Amino acid sequence: MAKVRVCNFSISLDGFGAGPDQDADNPLGRGGARLHDWIFLTRSGRSMRGHPDGETGVDDELFSRRDQGVGATIMGRNMFGPLRGPWGDSSWAGWWGSNPPFHHPVFVLTHHPRPSIQLEGGTTFHFVDAGIVAALVQAREAAQGRDVVVGGGVATIRQYLRARLIDDLHLVLVPLLLGGGERLFEDVDLGQDAYECVERINSPSVIHVRLQRR
Amino acid sequence: MAKVRVCNFSISLDGFGAGPDQDADNPLGRGGARLHDWIFLTRSGRSMRGHPDGETGVDDELFSRRDQGVGATIMGRNMFGPLRGPWGDSSWAGWWGSNPPFHHPVFVLTHHPRPSIQLEGGTTFHFVDAGIVAALVQAREAAQGRDVVVGGGVATIRQYLRARLIDDLHLVLVPLLLGGGERLFEDVDLGQDAYECVERINSPSVIHVRLQRR
Repeated sequence: MAKVRVCNFSISLDGFGAGPDQDADNPLGRGGARLHDWIFLTRSGRSMRGHPDGETGVDDELFSRRDQGVGATIMGRNMFGPLRGPWGDSSWAGWWGSNPPFHHPVFVLTHHPRPSIQLEGGTTFHFVDAGIVAALVQAREAAQGRDVVVGGGVATIRQYLRARLIDDLHLVLVPLLLGGGERLFEDVDLGQDAYECVERINSPSVIHVRLQRR
Repeated sequence: MAKVRVCNFSISLDGFGAGPDQDADNPLGRGGARLHDWIFLTRSGRSMRGHPDGETGVDDELFSRRDQGVGATIMGRNMFGPLRGPWGDSSWAGWWGSNPPFHHPVFVLTHHPRPSIQLEGGTTFHFVDAGIVAALVQAREAAQGRDVVVGGGVATIRQYLRARLIDDLHLVLVPLLLGGGERLFEDVDLGQDAYECVERINSPSVIHVRLQRR
């Protein structure tokens, strides 16, 4: 049975998935980019930026596996880009250039409809203004029996968690404090036995924790 | 130089050091006692309850080391007991019976003065109504050059963190979700580089993380 998954989602020890004072120049907030430093030490993370080097090991393994068995991704509009409000004649097509690292359909949650954008390498961005459940229905259909990943950001994952739609939650605990920002588990009360921790891995950089819905 | 330390302080993956709906019958809130299950699997934890068995290993080692080099403990009134308001003629002397596991002076924060209580095994409870700094000054003096431990609960540790008085913060991440309760890092913004993570240990039960003030 195909699953709805969160993969490699980084939070600080004080629980933030983005730092304080987010804006267009600082889409992850103050200090928030440090949550992803571990990715850009790995070989697969560095290859996304065109570098041939980087570390192998458990972080690389987990990060490079992020697309295995995945047929579609859902993301919030803030993860897609810094623009707010109606799209107008914007030609913004995401942060990832002409060949984004998804290689499958991506469903972007928005209040403002917009035609789909087809890019190289199999990535098409679809814009869904009918809510998180509609986006999931479309993503499941597009995934054709493979898993759907809810990519982020924090507010999007929180919405899917609250709606009890996440089957598998892979968090990456980054050993630092951000002091403020967007907290993943803000008003997320799923019942104390809703999830079981099925895996914990202490890597040289971070701690991977995988929770599975019971 | 003697340090002010937090030791073996358990929080859930969603950041709570006590569960929701705390009251006299449930001093740790709903599900909160599960944060301490790992302690009562260890040999030193079980010996506190009079059992001769229990696991050895890293959890036992870290838990049994909690008193090494410690000369005094500070705790909040809620950690001392379930009573609120003036002490009256209460004979309450803590949760720990006639020979508490501290074996050194313990300073209890309270708004209501009360004479000290001397128990067996070297534990004396002193009641401090002059605030967290006064309690620390008294504890440091009583510790005679050894470390001072801030034992808990959540609100007390949070106050000392906010006042930037904690040198060494040993947290135990318990792989479960509580969904609500008292969050350790609620409005605790110390600056993103105030602490450095100096140790991470993934035990069979929990994840130990030690943060040190830079």
